[in-house]
Amino acid sequence: MAGNSFGQLFRITTAGESHGPGNVVIIDGVPPGLPLAVDDLLPDLARRRPGQSKIVTARDEKDAPEILSGVFEGRTTGTSIAILIRNEDQRSRDYSDIRDRYRPGHADYTFDAKYGFRDYRGGGRSSARETNVRVAAGAVAKKLLAELGVRVLGYVKQVGDLVADIEDPAAVTLEQVESNIVRCPDRAKAEKMIALIEKLRGEKDSIGGIAELVATGVPAGWGEPVFDKLKADLGKALFSLPAVLGVEYGVGFAVATARGSENNDPFVKDGDQIATRGNRHGGMLGGISSGMPIVLRCAIKPTSSLPQPQETVDRSGKQTTIATKGRHDPCLLPRFVPMGEAMVAITLADHWLRQRAQRGPIDRT
Amino acid sequence: MAGNSFGQLFRITTAGESHGPGNVVIIDGVPPGLPLAVDDLLPDLARRRPGQSKIVTARDEKDAPEILSGVFEGRTTGTSIAILIRNEDQRSRDYSDIRDRYRPGHADYTFDAKYGFRDYRGGGRSSARETNVRVAAGAVAKKLLAELGVRVLGYVKQVGDLVADIEDPAAVTLEQVESNIVRCPDRAKAEKMIALIEKLRGEKDSIGGIAELVATGVPAGWGEPVFDKLKADLGKALFSLPAVLGVEYGVGFAVATARGSENNDPFVKDGDQIATRGNRHGGMLGGISSGMPIVLRCAIKPTSSLPQPQETVDRSGKQTTIATKGRHDPCLLPRFVPMGEAMVAITLADHWLRQRAQRGPIDRT
Amino acid sequence: MAGNSFGQLFRITTAGESHGPGNVVIIDGVPPGLPLAVDDLLPDLARRRPGQSKIVTARDEKDAPEILSGVFEGRTTGTSIAILIRNEDQRSRDYSDIRDRYRPGHADYTFDAKYGFRDYRGGGRSSARETNVRVAAGAVAKKLLAELGVRVLGYVKQVGDLVADIEDPAAVTLEQVESNIVRCPDRAKAEKMIALIEKLRGEKDSIGGIAELVATGVPAGWGEPVFDKLKADLGKALFSLPAVLGVEYGVGFAVATARGSENNDPFVKDGDQIATRGNRHGGMLGGISSGMPIVLRCAIKPTSSLPQPQETVDRSGKQTTIATKGRHDPCLLPRFVPMGEAMVAITLADHWLRQRAQRGPIDRT
Amino acid sequence: MAGNSFGQLFRITTAGESHGPGNVVIIDGVPPGLPLAVDDLLPDLARRRPGQSKIVTARDEKDAPEILSGVFEGRTTGTSIAILIRNEDQRSRDYSDIRDRYRPGHADYTFDAKYGFRDYRGGGRSSARETNVRVAAGAVAKKLLAELGVRVLGYVKQVGDLVADIEDPAAVTLEQVESNIVRCPDRAKAEKMIALIEKLRGEKDSIGGIAELVATGVPAGWGEPVFDKLKADLGKALFSLPAVLGVEYGVGFAVATARGSENNDPFVKDGDQIATRGNRHGGMLGGISSGMPIVLRCAIKPTSSLPQPQETVDRSGKQTTIATKGRHDPCLLPRFVPMGEAMVAITLADHWLRQRAQRGPIDRT
Repeated sequence: MAGNSFGQLFRITTAGESHGPGNVVIIDGVPPGLPLAVDDLLPDLARRRPGQSKIVTARDEKDAPEILSGVFEGRTTGTSIAILIRNEDQRSRDYSDIRDRYRPGHADYTFDAKYGFRDYRGGGRSSARETNVRVAAGAVAKKLLAELGVRVLGYVKQVGDLVADIEDPAAVTLEQVESNIVRCPDRAKAEKMIALIEKLRGEKDSIGGIAELVATGVPAGWGEPVFDKLKADLGKALFSLPAVLGVEYGVGFAVATARGSENNDPFVKDGDQIATRGNRHGGMLGGISSGMPIVLRCAIKPTSSLPQPQETVDRSGKQTTIATKGRHDPCLLPRFVPMGEAMVAITLADHWLRQRAQRGPIDRT
Repeated sequence: MAGNSFGQLFRITTAGESHGPGNVVIIDGVPPGLPLAVDDLLPDLARRRPGQSKIVTARDEKDAPEILSGVFEGRTTGTSIAILIRNEDQRSRDYSDIRDRYRPGHADYTFDAKYGFRDYRGGGRSSARETNVRVAAGAVAKKLLAELGVRVLGYVKQVGDLVADIEDPAAVTLEQVESNIVRCPDRAKAEKMIALIEKLRGEKDSIGGIAELVATGVPAGWGEPVFDKLKADLGKALFSLPAVLGVEYGVGFAVATARGSENNDPFVKDGDQIATRGNRHGGMLGGISSGMPIVLRCAIKPTSSLPQPQETVDRSGKQTTIATKGRHDPCLLPRFVPMGEAMVAITLADHWLRQRAQRGPIDRT
Repeated sequence: MAGNSFGQLFRITTAGESHGPGNVVIIDGVPPGLPLAVDDLLPDLARRRPGQSKIVTARDEKDAPEILSGVFEGRTTGTSIAILIRNEDQRSRDYSDIRDRYRPGHADYTFDAKYGFRDYRGGGRSSARETNVRVAAGAVAKKLLAELGVRVLGYVKQVGDLVADIEDPAAVTLEQVESNIVRCPDRAKAEKMIALIEKLRGEKDSIGGIAELVATGVPAGWGEPVFDKLKADLGKALFSLPAVLGVEYGVGFAVATARGSENNDPFVKDGDQIATRGNRHGGMLGGISSGMPIVLRCAIKPTSSLPQPQETVDRSGKQTTIATKGRHDPCLLPRFVPMGEAMVAITLADHWLRQRAQRGPIDRT
Repeated sequence: MAGNSFGQLFRITTAGESHGPGNVVIIDGVPPGLPLAVDDLLPDLARRRPGQSKIVTARDEKDAPEILSGVFEGRTTGTSIAILIRNEDQRSRDYSDIRDRYRPGHADYTFDAKYGFRDYRGGGRSSARETNVRVAAGAVAKKLLAELGVRVLGYVKQVGDLVADIEDPAAVTLEQVESNIVRCPDRAKAEKMIALIEKLRGEKDSIGGIAELVATGVPAGWGEPVFDKLKADLGKALFSLPAVLGVEYGVGFAVATARGSENNDPFVKDGDQIATRGNRHGGMLGGISSGMPIVLRCAIKPTSSLPQPQETVDRSGKQTTIATKGRHDPCLLPRFVPMGEAMVAITLADHWLRQRAQRGPIDRT
């Protein structure tokens, strides 16, 4: 209960720090019989890993996962799946610059306040390093969802003032997203975003942005009516990622200025299905999936670590400055995309299992 | 696990529907010795209840709570506290208009998709009616937090295009909030908001808005580093409320256009404490409270129920229209404020208990 | 997490004390569509209630349940079901005899040690009174299990030295059990047990015993392989009832003197099914149901409350004696039977839902 | 929720199988600052491991643990601790004898019934192999409890008909237990037990027994009053171990023949403390620790795997026999002792944290 698990039935539990031996995830709830191998994990890990392009951090982490359990003869057994990713880049260096000084925007001070001391060699447990095993677990969830016809895809919607023009979020393809290093399906804007990010890195600065995440193929009926609304669990999932300061569904904050008469999406018949005309609601009504694409956006802050001097205090409270050494992302968005997809996929897999358990009619298993 | 509980150590479990005998909440985790009586629950229930002013629904619900357990001689015993609020306004009427037709923006269709049938007399379990026991539980959480010097307060920040001018969110007082029926501490804007809401009711329409919620006095160190970040659990808490389409902390979505060099709040010495200059981060770093005020905003959609005809389909998929009868809020914001406060208070009480269990040093209880 | 909930998917949460307004249970996880009414709860409540016969306590409690939620037009809706049972026999009396003196065998002292104070009017939260809502929830679980062909039945196996002769636990019928007031299907022994209990009541004393519980119709495959073995969850369920000092499955403690070659139940073909010859294993192998009847026994201590003086101390530690007034059971066994059945049924319903969620193959809900 | 986690606040989650790469445990809830190193884990792992003496299985498993996270500069950080133990003895061999035939007393058939297929190379997830990481986690829990003055110790009480004579369970020392290979502090009986076990191995058979577990130094007040009674959580913990068919506290099943007047332990003053004269209740009253030693016993079945032919069926239901090859324990008791201690220690650590969170008075952390 110390916050290292997520999900009820599809449940992940993680451990690991940025500068320890490695990170590990235990995945509970994958039904037996799903084909699974290390190769299934590699593509998303490659999309998340540092060093993948010129606009992300130059640190080189291979993120080679090992499946320790839960798979036999290429299929899941129904028991818990453990995945280990060892840390490779654990160079011993001089940490005296960050040991006693609190990096602004980081968890250094809050960890000290919480625990009394901390692993001063980096972010420790608060580092984005731990998201590598989330992405591995997300790849398992995606594979499961694919069997059900559900697809989760994210992309960069905005970097600084540059907003991508996306006509239909549900029509964006993985190929479009991966066609450029910033992961923006609007190619013209993607080029400008890349240029902006490179410019900011040159200025020893960083920039924020917005990622959009879309789940298609989710049938109507997933999610619970009260506390575990699908939007509530997705919200928790996404806010649990580092640097996320905002989450919104459908038209999101734009509802503030909307009238009910324009905001309601009318129900219509779409072939055999009931659907809505328009998707201002973002694919969930009363917290339960409506059968329309689930569309959401996350606001991501600019990287806090900067190579330029920033004002701060040390552990004793004395005023000082800090300029973080090391290699950091000038913009977190390109690497956020697979992390966001992973958390959405894990949440959906969880709610699929929950709906599976609870649905009527009552029948002998 | 069917989504009727929230929290880990301060944990609420609810039951009840809009048209059943009543709603009940069981609260786990209140330590022994807290003075508690029904009177402690009434103020926030009055702020939530329908019929409180001319700009909310005219339904009259008294929301008279009964404490069924967990209190002895005026103090909590440390065991589970049950609170029952009976429904009073259960007039039998003709439901044929909504029985088979899906109200746009409501959970009618998604409930049918999930459960196969539903209580057609209203929102059932998806009705905002169930939030009355959340508000009662929130009053208990607030009372607990007050003992620790923590205060949770919300107010209306925006209705339609009207944005309140609030200099310092942490300085707003309950008196300012309650000085007008729209619960906006900017009096000039409050008057305009009230006028706008009345105008929209006259037009048989509704309007959205934004509520801001502030927690002061939270010490640094609450929240967990990974999945149960304080921002993650607050996000889930708030998205679990009806009509919330967006949640953001600190500067929120404005981080998208910010540079790191301007977005980081520098650490400074503030008396004996370490604080930050500025609070763009919203009171949490790495998901753990920083000691600065926690500031967040929720985007609330305009009421979906409208007395004007809206396009929809019936259960068979045939196109039709529906104009919901009954009395509805032309704007949800004024009644949302105590609901939002309740969920924030419950989440903070939970993380207080969690930090209490886990903190060092290790000592015999 | 303060221990007022049981189960993962079929989950009950309770509140209430012996001398408060009443007890309430919220049941999560009942799928939609199960026919349910108050009448379904009454038979087991009648089997549990005080005053039912001359060999149980003479207190008169009607235990009239009210279903507050989760049922619409006679069927469960799939949302949380709350059941309230008000306390009726709350006569105000003089509690000075038990207020400061610790009753031996009771939780008076441990509650004081845990909470610092307690409701001194009786057992409070530790009273067997709270089991009435467990029995109500158990009746719901039994009704659910009946749809699946699963039956849970208990009976008294032993009182003092009197051991019932039961040839086949799975063949015992409810009629046999209810044919006498001690709930022992061996009629000859039942008469002797009744005589023994009456004798002990005459001597102001009490007597212990053993209850046997049997679940038939459970298909092979329920239960989880590691911590949530079916035997582990059943064990917790039964030890959570007051006065249970021992639980054993199949041959139980008799395995201590058994050889492997005699203890293993050989697998055999039984029609289309695989079964075992003999059921020394008690219906679970590796913690997972084997398809054979689940057979277990609980050791129940003699009632601690006695009308004769017992040595004890008061809150200040001063030596004194106490003879509890009021009306108590000279033997807990007859009333334990429905409690034990309820906890077994709740545990099985939970594992049915869990198996339902996790089983292969992977298919779209 | 698929049963791979145990505990609420001190929580362990495990993964791994007998014939996979290894087993891993993630431990949540250890407060910051506890000194911890691999050396702390080795003694109990050595007590659990195969090949340790002539009366256990001759398989050689080194069980070399690696701490992957949660420890920095020799102290716990307060974040999740992962421990990995790789499997070493994974010789590829011919499994055709057990691939399709169900070993009596094992989980082969129930796994097939549950999952549709299984890792046929051994017990897979149902193997006692997974208890090695439980024992490692138990060593962490023991170290934590030692800081609080709590000690957990187990020993063999009975093998076959040989019952050890133990005057005071709370006075037994680790040295006495470890003075012989059967782990029985009654030396005379220990020799006879060893001889009996060797005799049975010679006869290609196995024998059951009873282990007794004792926790001293537990203060009054741990445990919750209703479902999470300490006896309930301990019961679940112990029944979650393989081969446990019975659990009893204090006098256990002997309460069946006891009168209340003799069974109640009178409260007495013991120095500054309140204690009981006698400990028939086993250290818990109302499910909450009484301050007296917690004393319990587990009935352990004889090893199911036997080198002699046993009747069974194959997957198609055809009658056949099986004589399990490989090296097995002729008696599980000596290796059960550290497993039982581990589960008791984990449960107690969990309830210490829970009591820490919930106790009064209410104070700012």
